Amino acid sequence: MEKIKVAIVGYGNIGKYTIEAVEAAPDMEVAGIVRRNPSPVPYPYPVCSDISELGKVDVAILCTPSRKVEENALKYLQMGINTVDSFDIHSNICNLRSTLAPVAAAHNAVSVISAGWDPGSDSVVRALLQAIAPKGITYTNFGPGRSMGHSVAVRAIPGVVDALSMTIPVGTGIHRRMVYVQLEEGADFKTVEAAVKADAYFVNDETHVIQVADVNELNDVGHGVDLIRKGVSGQTHNQLFEFKMTINNPALTAQVLVASARASMRQRPGCYTMIEIPVIDYLAGDRETLIHDLV
Amino acid sequence: MEKIKVAIVGYGNIGKYTIEAVEAAPDMEVAGIVRRNPSPVPYPYPVCSDISELGKVDVAILCTPSRKVEENALKYLQMGINTVDSFDIHSNICNLRSTLAPVAAAHNAVSVISAGWDPGSDSVVRALLQAIAPKGITYTNFGPGRSMGHSVAVRAIPGVVDALSMTIPVGTGIHRRMVYVQLEEGADFKTVEAAVKADAYFVNDETHVIQVADVNELNDVGHGVDLIRKGVSGQTHNQLFEFKMTINNPALTAQVLVASARASMRQRPGCYTMIEIPVIDYLAGDRETLIHDLV
Repeated sequence: MEKIKVAIVGYGNIGKYTIEAVEAAPDMEVAGIVRRNPSPVPYPYPVCSDISELGKVDVAILCTPSRKVEENALKYLQMGINTVDSFDIHSNICNLRSTLAPVAAAHNAVSVISAGWDPGSDSVVRALLQAIAPKGITYTNFGPGRSMGHSVAVRAIPGVVDALSMTIPVGTGIHRRMVYVQLEEGADFKTVEAAVKADAYFVNDETHVIQVADVNELNDVGHGVDLIRKGVSGQTHNQLFEFKMTINNPALTAQVLVASARASMRQRPGCYTMIEIPVIDYLAGDRETLIHDLV
Repeated sequence: MEKIKVAIVGYGNIGKYTIEAVEAAPDMEVAGIVRRNPSPVPYPYPVCSDISELGKVDVAILCTPSRKVEENALKYLQMGINTVDSFDIHSNICNLRSTLAPVAAAHNAVSVISAGWDPGSDSVVRALLQAIAPKGITYTNFGPGRSMGHSVAVRAIPGVVDALSMTIPVGTGIHRRMVYVQLEEGADFKTVEAAVKADAYFVNDETHVIQVADVNELNDVGHGVDLIRKGVSGQTHNQLFEFKMTINNPALTAQVLVASARASMRQRPGCYTMIEIPVIDYLAGDRETLIHDLV
């Protein structure tokens, strides 16, 4: 059986974990790595700045920031290469899908978007729970784990050298922010603390600011979710559901990307979110055996 | 928009909850009830012994025992009517699928099989967890809740008037059996207890037998599951996942059947288990809105 040829686009944290996940997949191989500056990497794969240098590529996994996804996906789809991304700006997912769908269809390619863990695998769970208890409320509680967006917002505050914002779930979709800041010599902590609490990212949440000597000492890529639904099946109330996970964040994101790359090979041309794809299509192996073992 | 016309086949516990779930679905209506003895029911729907008396039917939801599923499904599929069932004999699911698939395809119909909660919605979760952590072990812990198969086995023992076997999860897929027995006058409890513990259904499990005056006083349709996976995403170990639910058993089964009836209208002819269908297809409502709200 011919293996699915995967290009890794972007060589940051997610890119490295994605290489590991492709290597662990029995039905895939790394065609190469695409990065702006094609300097060598400690993996036995070609590195280039233009994907066409890699020969045949079935799927490009976009391990670049969300704001670069649309541009990159359009470029590869127009070349007839499937794309997968973990685009995580929830409010723009439908727009991205509308933009990519006609281009994918026109070039006989498939794009799977927002394929991380949230949006991504959590979305599949949320959709399933709504199907089996159509009325009710779902709360998605994140953490404990760091929030990149919040950390970046704090780093932009004058006097801050480095910052880490941890998301702590306090239930019912409400989160506490634990913000660790490393300050410039002479910076006033009280001023920084007030600026953090007044920032749009933090103003609506319970926020605690703590000064530390070295933020880097606190870094840990663990994360988690506790997704809860209480709802109604038919006309029967008080049906209770909970999905929890405690995970290495980039490793899980990379694995979801790789599973979605596989699934992209099994869809008709177009653009898909994860809830639009049969779950079995994410899995390696014989279909009959999977049904026997998992159903 | 025209509503999906659903026939309820079988008027037992699941059949009644299924009527309620169809009534709660915005895009469906009850075409009627099919039962061997077409005596009236306390619902405003036609009752008959032959589905062709109901006029146009899009989907027949089979609320009959698992052993009757194949015969009924074949009959309706041959009439071009979609079928949905909650066939729960895990080891025979692939066979049932192979038998129904060609008949469904030949008559331009769709069959969704094993659409309960296990097999069913739990299967979707198991498949998703294997996709996002491909190596590892999943344990499905059932209960607390009654086991029909085990209860029936106890009722067959001489001296037993009625029995209830409760499944209690003790972790790692191991279950304790709490068996409540109501005995005939003069029956010897110790003899019954020994017979239960020696029965093939119980011999491998920790089993406790308790004599009660009236088994009916203990009946409760609550059930649950605690599905746990610890596995590897890419090359990163110790990824932890848990899916728990505490539910009214027949109400959840009925809701899954109804969601699967909807999904059957959106698949190409053939036979499907739940993991072979996109999760969004189980949901009522506008697709774009669902993606916006759930992804």
